[in-house]
Amino acid sequence: MNSVHFTAETSANGVIERDFTLGELTGALWSPASGAGRAPLVLLGHGGGNHRKSPAMVGRAERLVTNGGFNVAVIDAPGHGGRPRTEYDEREIAVMQRAMAAGEPVGPIVRRYNAHLAERAVPEWQATLDALQELPEIGADGPVGYFGLNMGTAIGVPLTAVEPRVTAAVFGLFWPETLVETARRISIPIEFALQWDDEHIPREAGLALFDAFASKDKTLHANAGRHKELPRFEADSAVRFFVRHLGGAAGPQG
Amino acid sequence: MNSVHFTAETSANGVIERDFTLGELTGALWSPASGAGRAPLVLLGHGGGNHRKSPAMVGRAERLVTNGGFNVAVIDAPGHGGRPRTEYDEREIAVMQRAMAAGEPVGPIVRRYNAHLAERAVPEWQATLDALQELPEIGADGPVGYFGLNMGTAIGVPLTAVEPRVTAAVFGLFWPETLVETARRISIPIEFALQWDDEHIPREAGLALFDAFASKDKTLHANAGRHKELPRFEADSAVRFFVRHLGGAAGPQG
Repeated sequence: MNSVHFTAETSANGVIERDFTLGELTGALWSPASGAGRAPLVLLGHGGGNHRKSPAMVGRAERLVTNGGFNVAVIDAPGHGGRPRTEYDEREIAVMQRAMAAGEPVGPIVRRYNAHLAERAVPEWQATLDALQELPEIGADGPVGYFGLNMGTAIGVPLTAVEPRVTAAVFGLFWPETLVETARRISIPIEFALQWDDEHIPREAGLALFDAFASKDKTLHANAGRHKELPRFEADSAVRFFVRHLGGAAGPQG
Repeated sequence: MNSVHFTAETSANGVIERDFTLGELTGALWSPASGAGRAPLVLLGHGGGNHRKSPAMVGRAERLVTNGGFNVAVIDAPGHGGRPRTEYDEREIAVMQRAMAAGEPVGPIVRRYNAHLAERAVPEWQATLDALQELPEIGADGPVGYFGLNMGTAIGVPLTAVEPRVTAAVFGLFWPETLVETARRISIPIEFALQWDDEHIPREAGLALFDAFASKDKTLHANAGRHKELPRFEADSAVRFFVRHLGGAAGPQG
């Protein structure tokens, strides 16, 4: 299971999109169509209930390729994007849906379930990174970034803490309880997004998670608005963050 | 005293810099050398003890002209940049310098003195804006932004609260005590910078001032580091903020 197998390829507006499998994992890789040699790699982590080609993933990937010249990879999280669910997955999802339907707080369930998913997802990401680094357009020693919000942060923080190949990361929109201890072991440059009027994550909770990172170079972007109202321009900010820290063939926004 | 009088002009790298006087006021105006018709105006407020052509002002002005296509104006604050000091100015500056030399907190003195300077500076800015809007490259109905940190915020918040021509503003690096009530009356788009490890302004104080703005569209940028360590890339962020909200002939970074 240690090589990526490409199953489909499309190309539009200077961006090549390839689906791949790696053993039982399913993923997508976006790259500049110009194929101008090696480029840094940005890993995208999708949100809960979502998948590798959700609109947010496709939009961020296209911006990163077009404006940063990066390669961009996403894999479906365990139980997501058509991957099989365990009985435990089914049970937790049912509990979460009941809480949502009843208007009860979902934070405790999301934190617990996402911490469980992270345990399964971190080694999957590491195997994916091993395999992607065998591709000539990525290479074994190029810079690697990680960009994930919501569940993408719940998985990305523990991944970054154990994975020295990740040297810059964009996180946000998650609670501190399950992540603070891990965040304290992370000292790479961080950009962190939170919503000032988040109806799920208390303001102080988001600030506490940002505060926990040991990074000397970290930036908080807090925008007025509710949980799902993160402004679109934050995706462009993430591109510039990765251009600053990974290099990259700065495009028009670099 | 109602027309600007240009006293010097230089030009370099596509930017024209003109010194001007307006009665007893002294200012500087930066514009695109291409002279491509009218462009929005950004007012810059300098920091305490500084002046219209300090390195921060020149650097921000050049970025705003080059990457946003804006006209950019700065005036020396009362008692700054060679303008005469009153006895009150001399007394407050002496008190502040004694506190600094003794390692005592300067916040209470800075807040009090800057609130006083704002009362003198706001009508000066309004007269300057009247006069600048008579210039053909600016015009009476073009968009106007304001960008000022530290004392530039202490003056800019009360200016923005009473000046409907200012429709977008970048503030930051100031305490809330003297500004919160005024900030609550401001609802234009705001970008606000604070330093996460500011040795003068407690974190909660900076957050409280950001929180006070009534704006539906507001963004906080909090960077790790001490009071004077605001990263250079925040100036580029301000340019993009003004491009989003004032329009402007978006340059390479637009």
